[in-house]
Amino acid sequence: MTNYDEFLSPLGRNLHESVLRKMGQVIASRTSDLISFAAGYPDPNAFPWDEFREIASELLSGGDGSVLQYGPTRGYRPLLESILGVLESRGIKADLSQVMVTSGSQQGLDLVARVLIAPGDAVLVEVPTYTGAIAAFRNAQCRLVGVQQDEDGINLDDLDACLMRERASGSRVKLLYLVPNFQNPTGILLGLEKRRRLLEWAERRDILIVEDDPYSELFFEDVASRAETRPLKADDDAGRVIYLSTFSKTLAPGFRVAWVAAAEPIVERFDTAKQSMDLMCGMLDQRIVHQSIVRGVLDRQGAPLRRLYRTRRDVMEQALREQLGNRVTWIVPKGGFFLWAQLPPPYHCESLFSLAMEQGVMFVIGSAFCVDGSGADRIRLSFSWPSPERLREGARRLAAALHPESCVAANLERPDTT
Amino acid sequence: MTNYDEFLSPLGRNLHESVLRKMGQVIASRTSDLISFAAGYPDPNAFPWDEFREIASELLSGGDGSVLQYGPTRGYRPLLESILGVLESRGIKADLSQVMVTSGSQQGLDLVARVLIAPGDAVLVEVPTYTGAIAAFRNAQCRLVGVQQDEDGINLDDLDACLMRERASGSRVKLLYLVPNFQNPTGILLGLEKRRRLLEWAERRDILIVEDDPYSELFFEDVASRAETRPLKADDDAGRVIYLSTFSKTLAPGFRVAWVAAAEPIVERFDTAKQSMDLMCGMLDQRIVHQSIVRGVLDRQGAPLRRLYRTRRDVMEQALREQLGNRVTWIVPKGGFFLWAQLPPPYHCESLFSLAMEQGVMFVIGSAFCVDGSGADRIRLSFSWPSPERLREGARRLAAALHPESCVAANLERPDTT
Repeated sequence: MTNYDEFLSPLGRNLHESVLRKMGQVIASRTSDLISFAAGYPDPNAFPWDEFREIASELLSGGDGSVLQYGPTRGYRPLLESILGVLESRGIKADLSQVMVTSGSQQGLDLVARVLIAPGDAVLVEVPTYTGAIAAFRNAQCRLVGVQQDEDGINLDDLDACLMRERASGSRVKLLYLVPNFQNPTGILLGLEKRRRLLEWAERRDILIVEDDPYSELFFEDVASRAETRPLKADDDAGRVIYLSTFSKTLAPGFRVAWVAAAEPIVERFDTAKQSMDLMCGMLDQRIVHQSIVRGVLDRQGAPLRRLYRTRRDVMEQALREQLGNRVTWIVPKGGFFLWAQLPPPYHCESLFSLAMEQGVMFVIGSAFCVDGSGADRIRLSFSWPSPERLREGARRLAAALHPESCVAANLERPDTT
Repeated sequence: MTNYDEFLSPLGRNLHESVLRKMGQVIASRTSDLISFAAGYPDPNAFPWDEFREIASELLSGGDGSVLQYGPTRGYRPLLESILGVLESRGIKADLSQVMVTSGSQQGLDLVARVLIAPGDAVLVEVPTYTGAIAAFRNAQCRLVGVQQDEDGINLDDLDACLMRERASGSRVKLLYLVPNFQNPTGILLGLEKRRRLLEWAERRDILIVEDDPYSELFFEDVASRAETRPLKADDDAGRVIYLSTFSKTLAPGFRVAWVAAAEPIVERFDTAKQSMDLMCGMLDQRIVHQSIVRGVLDRQGAPLRRLYRTRRDVMEQALREQLGNRVTWIVPKGGFFLWAQLPPPYHCESLFSLAMEQGVMFVIGSAFCVDGSGADRIRLSFSWPSPERLREGARRLAAALHPESCVAANLERPDTT
């Protein structure tokens, strides 16, 4: 029997798993009636199937061999051009030298990790933040420093204090990662004034900002507007923002087509790195996405998707209130897929996870999103995928898991959450 | 103006470009009548377009939302199951815990690089070898040690001598990378007896073998048989072989669907690493490939593709002989896409590249494939993509570039090729 441990690289020994991915496997392996509030999946009933089928059928006529051929690492050029239009609709001016297609935004995060983060660097992230970023950055062997958030996004005082403390102790800090629009997992929308001040801060402190923006099209019009989602990148005159976005939430995640917009020297490095990572993104996928933009499919998706997910949020909030009263609290999500719920004592997210699984409902534990050891009294509930009936049934099950009797039955004591 | 260099990681500063990718950009940027013997592209006229169109149309009916949804990092399970069948047809017995889908074999190489290669390690490769492997491994900051090849593949005496020399000097050597079937760039087929002895050697010397096998289905029946392509992995009782293969050459490269078969502990690590690299491979692509296997499309591709590329090789060889007599020599390719040509003095592959571009034909310079500084008198000619007429015209242009007068006109002296 070969001992494989001896063959592993330092990274191979210390790989960080994505908690969300692991949970996806739990779902996949269960055949029961489990309701998942865990995965941040879009509703496939909202995918524009007819348009995709028609586009794919035309592309696969065989008249254009390049549809299934190798292609440029940077991306299919007409797609890159149409991405410039998408960027412009968000207030961002860029040219072809500043954009690149990536295999999902996860690859954008991995490119940031590999090209910009050196082992031992400190990277600033929000508390809580997206688990996929945590995993990608940790795999670059950096240290993640958590910055507090207010109801309108990252706390700028704490941000600067964290930076100065790190630098005073000799750490190299080059990056801040954030999700300004309908943050994962909190659903928080970063205020416009804070965005302006963040850009000034980045210039003053000589920092790059990684702006991850998968949800900007999914604002809920009762509490947010398109103007409030204006990306930092739109006002980034100094070229300090690396902007990541994706078609996973507006078209479909199965295509794995996302993009990065950044200063040309950074995009060039990303291009070179991607050459040895996977050569290129799927060509048929890129062509389908390109045609979806050109034919207006993408634009037509926006309004119905905003209505759909806003309704889901409403159903989820109402069901939680009906089932749990004020025992569980949260900040109203202004867009996106997620509700970040605070648990009542004595519940710890991990103990509740077991109780909830017994009741047939799952979520993501709050601690998975927190790099500072916090989050034990939080859970992330995703309302994007389940139907309204399943949202209501899931809330009932969650209430059963949170019932004092189930707590007693599980011999639950308040865990130590230091 | 922001100075981006200060933000780069050590890897970001020292990224290795794939020469082939760079050349792909040259092709893409030219609108002229350039004939490319450079890129190892399959012929898109041979893609089963009708079947793909029919499959895609059925998959995109909307009846099954998972076709465009997020999915498991390991791969779409029915595809993994059908890959087990493909492996079995090559003599390899594996179970689901030992296979994983990758975004092209390039991602398999990147996974090897990240999970198994530590900075400073020495990795054994053939001279010459595939440039994509060179780039991926170098980006793991290892040193590549070149091993000589004979007409029947890697020289086992030189292999062991290289290993022992490296170990004696304190280097850690854990991996040998090779392409046993119709090697890129030489087209060499590794002898069966050598395969058996390589497995013994790996066990004796405690080494893992990365077996990259994109071309095994493309054997040319006048000089090779399926039996001679039997992968090392088929006889790998000790679990020392990491087997990479792909559907890029048998179905189409635009799908970016490849796979790795290896011992379970290695596949588990690869899975974890891929989670933070790109989450998953394109789901529609995986589904189309799966259906192509299930419906027999893949099986039906084999024989016609073997005939097609064998004919191309014949045309290429005949045209080169007619145009160049014995001034250029090569080992007859027994399969695959490539012919590895030796240039007459005083030609250096880089000088000839300029001359050839002036004549409207391009190839890949031999030195790009050689980690030991050799290859200056070699070029790789790919015969897979151009039509027979273009192969003949390209050979004429190559002959014009190699004409003594063009040599004089270019003021060409024999360059120093130390």
